[in-house]
Amino acid sequence: MDMKEKALELHRKYSGKLNIGIKIPVKGSEELSLIYSPGVAEPCKEIAVNEEKMYEYTIKGNFVAVITDGSSVLGLGNIGPRAAMPVMEGKAALFKLFGGIDAIPLCLNTQDVDKVVETVKLLEPTFGGINLEDISAPNCFVIEERLKRELSIPVFHDDQHGTAIVTAAGLINALSLVKKRLIEIKVVVNGAGAAGVAVVKLLLSMGVKNLILCDSQGAIYQGRPIRMNRMKEELAKQTNKQRLDGSLETVLKGADVFIGVSVAGVLTTEMVQTMASDAIIFAMANPDPEIMPDEAKAAGARVVGTGRSDFPNQINNVLAFPGIFRGALDVRATEINEEMKIAAVYAIAEIVGTHDVHEDYVIPSPFDERVVTRVAHAVSQAAIASGAAKKLDLEKDKLPV
Amino acid sequence: MDMKEKALELHRKYSGKLNIGIKIPVKGSEELSLIYSPGVAEPCKEIAVNEEKMYEYTIKGNFVAVITDGSSVLGLGNIGPRAAMPVMEGKAALFKLFGGIDAIPLCLNTQDVDKVVETVKLLEPTFGGINLEDISAPNCFVIEERLKRELSIPVFHDDQHGTAIVTAAGLINALSLVKKRLIEIKVVVNGAGAAGVAVVKLLLSMGVKNLILCDSQGAIYQGRPIRMNRMKEELAKQTNKQRLDGSLETVLKGADVFIGVSVAGVLTTEMVQTMASDAIIFAMANPDPEIMPDEAKAAGARVVGTGRSDFPNQINNVLAFPGIFRGALDVRATEINEEMKIAAVYAIAEIVGTHDVHEDYVIPSPFDERVVTRVAHAVSQAAIASGAAKKLDLEKDKLPV
Repeated sequence: MDMKEKALELHRKYSGKLNIGIKIPVKGSEELSLIYSPGVAEPCKEIAVNEEKMYEYTIKGNFVAVITDGSSVLGLGNIGPRAAMPVMEGKAALFKLFGGIDAIPLCLNTQDVDKVVETVKLLEPTFGGINLEDISAPNCFVIEERLKRELSIPVFHDDQHGTAIVTAAGLINALSLVKKRLIEIKVVVNGAGAAGVAVVKLLLSMGVKNLILCDSQGAIYQGRPIRMNRMKEELAKQTNKQRLDGSLETVLKGADVFIGVSVAGVLTTEMVQTMASDAIIFAMANPDPEIMPDEAKAAGARVVGTGRSDFPNQINNVLAFPGIFRGALDVRATEINEEMKIAAVYAIAEIVGTHDVHEDYVIPSPFDERVVTRVAHAVSQAAIASGAAKKLDLEKDKLPV
Repeated sequence: MDMKEKALELHRKYSGKLNIGIKIPVKGSEELSLIYSPGVAEPCKEIAVNEEKMYEYTIKGNFVAVITDGSSVLGLGNIGPRAAMPVMEGKAALFKLFGGIDAIPLCLNTQDVDKVVETVKLLEPTFGGINLEDISAPNCFVIEERLKRELSIPVFHDDQHGTAIVTAAGLINALSLVKKRLIEIKVVVNGAGAAGVAVVKLLLSMGVKNLILCDSQGAIYQGRPIRMNRMKEELAKQTNKQRLDGSLETVLKGADVFIGVSVAGVLTTEMVQTMASDAIIFAMANPDPEIMPDEAKAAGARVVGTGRSDFPNQINNVLAFPGIFRGALDVRATEINEEMKIAAVYAIAEIVGTHDVHEDYVIPSPFDERVVTRVAHAVSQAAIASGAAKKLDLEKDKLPV
């Protein structure tokens, strides 16, 4: 049986992946009268007086909604909310497996920005955090921005920030290997969707000065007459200072770093040969990267990462989102801000360690058990330091069930 | 420690009651690549072609949302969506404990009818059924009616129909004991909120002819000048044929059955003495009934039921909703219609059995393990017979995990 058939069979056998459990042991009518009527009235009354008590008496503090409109699912595109459900269930499973977080999928029957925003706002009382998933650009930017402004719980669009954080962590280590600094390198990011935009924003806030973002039309620059949107206009102001107009091939010349969040095969060996020495390439198109690692290496690249588990240096979001939400929830952060994201970047990067880093190990394995704890701790600390935490003590011994 | 402190401590110790589990065993990267990227793309593609495949590859078919606006929670009133959360978690726990159904609480941050309806509509793709909970009258009638019309999954307002179904089941058995027939009895229902309205509707559809509904202003009749609403107007046309205008005390004279879904203490021993012989009294105000059972008995009532577990004949919704949803989900019913509700009434009533029925046993115990299976089977059959089932075979051996 091949992998595709195995995946179908497994999903069919169990009718999906998640189930709901009851944390409190219920043996009979006495426990029932405590968890339901009449005993349940007591926590209700406490919360009615002080809504923060929800974190004490309900699952809210460890409960995350994985929300999609089904507009940009995996590499499958706009397949709609129903077909997106297996991915959202899978994402919720990863939240539990890696972060001990109870997450549920909510696939919304709309792709209208206002309706998505309104729905998530109305769902806020129930959840401790919102993970937006597989929502297409540029809608995802507007939805996330509005929700971040209007909700008092963390909102995180993983396709943007998860990818950006893990990429940046890999880049930090790759740079230490080739002895270059963020401030002096030239970076070309190819792909101006959710992930590309977030990578650019994060690298800028981490100190990268020379950065060019490309889309299918080539380099994005201020005032480009075609295929712009609000987000591209905004980023054009902060990148490509020389306002270079040209193809990826043109602007890649002399670049130290290529970051691809675009489509298979767009990076050729000839193009890699024009990059600076010790070139770093993260080719993250899925399932087939912008260039295959062996080709990139043969063309002179020093470090190559992809999104795939069958090559070294897998840029996998699972290194970021479980620890980020764990850390945010642990201190009841009201948001996941830039400081918390950057803390996550360095926590992930540091796990590799300066002694162990090498060309094929710039990023930890998704199964490295140190990752989630270290990221969570760093994110909690950053939340406290940046004023985003409502709860300032870290209860390390009280782990979620 | 008293019960109130115990309830608080239990909720605090576990931080609420529910958690999310993963049904598929995940040992390592191979299973991960099947339940998440890249394998998860396969069920997505299948559902993109045929959305009914959601029932095969996702949790939808066993996944129910317990939805409230927090406007009428237990006996606590309009305490809002946040304070309602412990009850909704408890309800979800009952779904799992009694029906094997995976349910989650969704407490909406609005009490606007249109917004509740719109939100539930947008959530439809994810769920196999919707349980509306603790939404106040008359909003609950409008919300349920619109959702039933606009969704193609079952929508059930348990405060209405759960109560009505269990009450009717108890009544069937009580009538067999006193040898009276539905068609010939006089019934007075006190309380015109969600439960009272549903009791009246169900009894009418089961054949009761002589029925008077009272609210705090006394008997409801067509054209009553005060305190009417659309639902009361509608029911006034079908009840109180003589258009009696008077207090509960006045209209109760000669009644065979009193059904109270109102407030503590409104039924006096003097009033019970004016009822017909072998009077049946279901006094379901919580936590204190309209009359205490010993007083009612002393005043001549033959059968007395309450909502409480510490008296005989507990009218408990848990006898109905788990089996009803189990039966509806098992055949992918598109609704929970009148035929399915009446099938549930008779299934619950029959468990008591004509040999065993007596004054203190007109309704099964909530812990009677036969209940959910029998109700589910009856409801599934009724769904098929009434054309509400999309799936016509009952897979008895495939139980949810």
